Amino acid sequence: MNQNTPVRVAINGYGVIGKRVADAVFCQDDMVVAGVADVATDWRLRLLESKGFALYGATPEHTIAMGEAGLPVVGTLDELLAQSDIVVDCTPKRVAAQNIETYRTRSIKFIVQGGEKHDATGHSFVAESSFESAIGRMATRVVSCNTTSIVRTLGALKRAGLLKRARGTLLRRATDPWESHEGGIMNTLIPEPHIPSHQGPDAQSVDPDLDVVTMAVKVPQTLAHLHYWTVDLTRNATKEEVLDAFRASSRIAFVRTSDGITALNTVKELMADLGRPHDNLYEVALWEDMLKVENGELFYAYMVDNQAIVIPDTIDAIRAITGLSNDAQSSISRTNASLGVGTFLS
Amino acid sequence: MNQNTPVRVAINGYGVIGKRVADAVFCQDDMVVAGVADVATDWRLRLLESKGFALYGATPEHTIAMGEAGLPVVGTLDELLAQSDIVVDCTPKRVAAQNIETYRTRSIKFIVQGGEKHDATGHSFVAESSFESAIGRMATRVVSCNTTSIVRTLGALKRAGLLKRARGTLLRRATDPWESHEGGIMNTLIPEPHIPSHQGPDAQSVDPDLDVVTMAVKVPQTLAHLHYWTVDLTRNATKEEVLDAFRASSRIAFVRTSDGITALNTVKELMADLGRPHDNLYEVALWEDMLKVENGELFYAYMVDNQAIVIPDTIDAIRAITGLSNDAQSSISRTNASLGVGTFLS
Repeated sequence: MNQNTPVRVAINGYGVIGKRVADAVFCQDDMVVAGVADVATDWRLRLLESKGFALYGATPEHTIAMGEAGLPVVGTLDELLAQSDIVVDCTPKRVAAQNIETYRTRSIKFIVQGGEKHDATGHSFVAESSFESAIGRMATRVVSCNTTSIVRTLGALKRAGLLKRARGTLLRRATDPWESHEGGIMNTLIPEPHIPSHQGPDAQSVDPDLDVVTMAVKVPQTLAHLHYWTVDLTRNATKEEVLDAFRASSRIAFVRTSDGITALNTVKELMADLGRPHDNLYEVALWEDMLKVENGELFYAYMVDNQAIVIPDTIDAIRAITGLSNDAQSSISRTNASLGVGTFLS
Repeated sequence: MNQNTPVRVAINGYGVIGKRVADAVFCQDDMVVAGVADVATDWRLRLLESKGFALYGATPEHTIAMGEAGLPVVGTLDELLAQSDIVVDCTPKRVAAQNIETYRTRSIKFIVQGGEKHDATGHSFVAESSFESAIGRMATRVVSCNTTSIVRTLGALKRAGLLKRARGTLLRRATDPWESHEGGIMNTLIPEPHIPSHQGPDAQSVDPDLDVVTMAVKVPQTLAHLHYWTVDLTRNATKEEVLDAFRASSRIAFVRTSDGITALNTVKELMADLGRPHDNLYEVALWEDMLKVENGELFYAYMVDNQAIVIPDTIDAIRAITGLSNDAQSSISRTNASLGVGTFLS
């Protein structure tokens, strides 16, 4: 592929993830938003024009409905795919599985989200762990927010030679902020009925070496997930060695209760104060001063912004499978610089 | 002590715990409520008369204020203590520490709650683990709700020879239901700034053998605490062996998601349907079908009613230190029968 021609990225589905992917692609200088496809006709698509993103209907019927609703729709998903190098599927779970057939028939490269199974593409992506094996593939799956955070953190411990086994408890936000009038929960906790939860095996789809088990529970808030981990280290390491292992990842950022960062909402306020779009927290926000190392055991907690954490990895996945880059670190650095990843409260 | 003369129990502090202790003492046939002391003058004490509990002011000043507020106050705490065999202190943290001096000066036996330190009495009480060592003492401390649940569950595993080490994540209710207009939190999670949290060492104050570490986080709901545990077993036991270990405790009750018991609020509704006062959950409610045993590791979750779990243990503690009983199991059985402990959804 000519390094001087920007890769044309189609985005299918303009929801919580799709709109963030579009904004992030827009910030890159080696790719452009070819267009956005969706099925809605309401307010959510009315800002597209001001952003300069072309709107397409998922089907001819949707395209007609969008036109009738006064949206500036320019064609169908088929037409969008025909003029794109790659499509990032950001549609809901069951829809994406059907779309994959279309992408394969068209022989267009594609990326699906973590809601799909590993087998949907045969490859699961977290930039720091599986960039190389994604290079030049037809498709990959950017794993879910929780799995991304697990692979980033346990991957960092593994690369430092410190990881033996990890057991995590995941407090999952009940629903997304803008959807809290549907699907929200109040004043209760809802354990996931199955132990272990799916995130452990999902992390192993990226890195089969990880000895990881997770349990999960839904909590009545919308801001982010919160993970608590107990890790057996390979040796009696110091806290500073563990912190160094995490510091080696540019997508793990430390926060400190001693700085007044005492809860999920303070981290979100910090993101807003940094001027980030949608107050996005792209990093794993790990509490540095809370972290404890004791007799070869490690305990820590971190926050995962389920709406934002996969965005930088999605950009890297575009580079890997389109061949825009064959080096994880250079792609990661480029993405980080464009989005301001890793720069808060150094 | 004459087994035919009921022990006279003074209750100092008529809040969340105090009023439940009074109701529970009332249900016993070997002890009576000598009276209740408090400092408030509002609605909380207006039901006392209909229950037949005599009201005392914590000080002469409080007694006068209560009288002026139209409460049927009959005397001061000093007078109450003079006609009681034991006092259960249910006052807030700092107040209790001061009261202890008074109790010692008067040479009256006393029980404090889990908010106090172990050193306050030199003995920490959970009926199933430390009844015997409490017999005949001048004082004991009934440990906190979370610690009580930890000692019950890990104690059960230990007695079955299964416990090697346990690591827990504690989701703590933000405040009590009736106080949620003060101290409540909304739409966020607040990690306890220190790892490990204090509950692990506190459990060791009851049973120093326990290898236990806990982490804790405050969640935006008021119903109960929820614990997630990862336990290394001493051997590759079966799920049934583990369940049997828990079944051996009469104060651990199983719930099942397959029965539709899927969240904290469904358990509370079940307690209400059982007609329990205040919908009290005295047991550790442990999800049986969620529990997983894998290669010598055990994973499970349970609910802790912070308002009610310590009540049966408090009744047993009264029997132990007054010498009403010198056998843990007979006291536990008697308490259970009087409160209906362990009888739901067999």
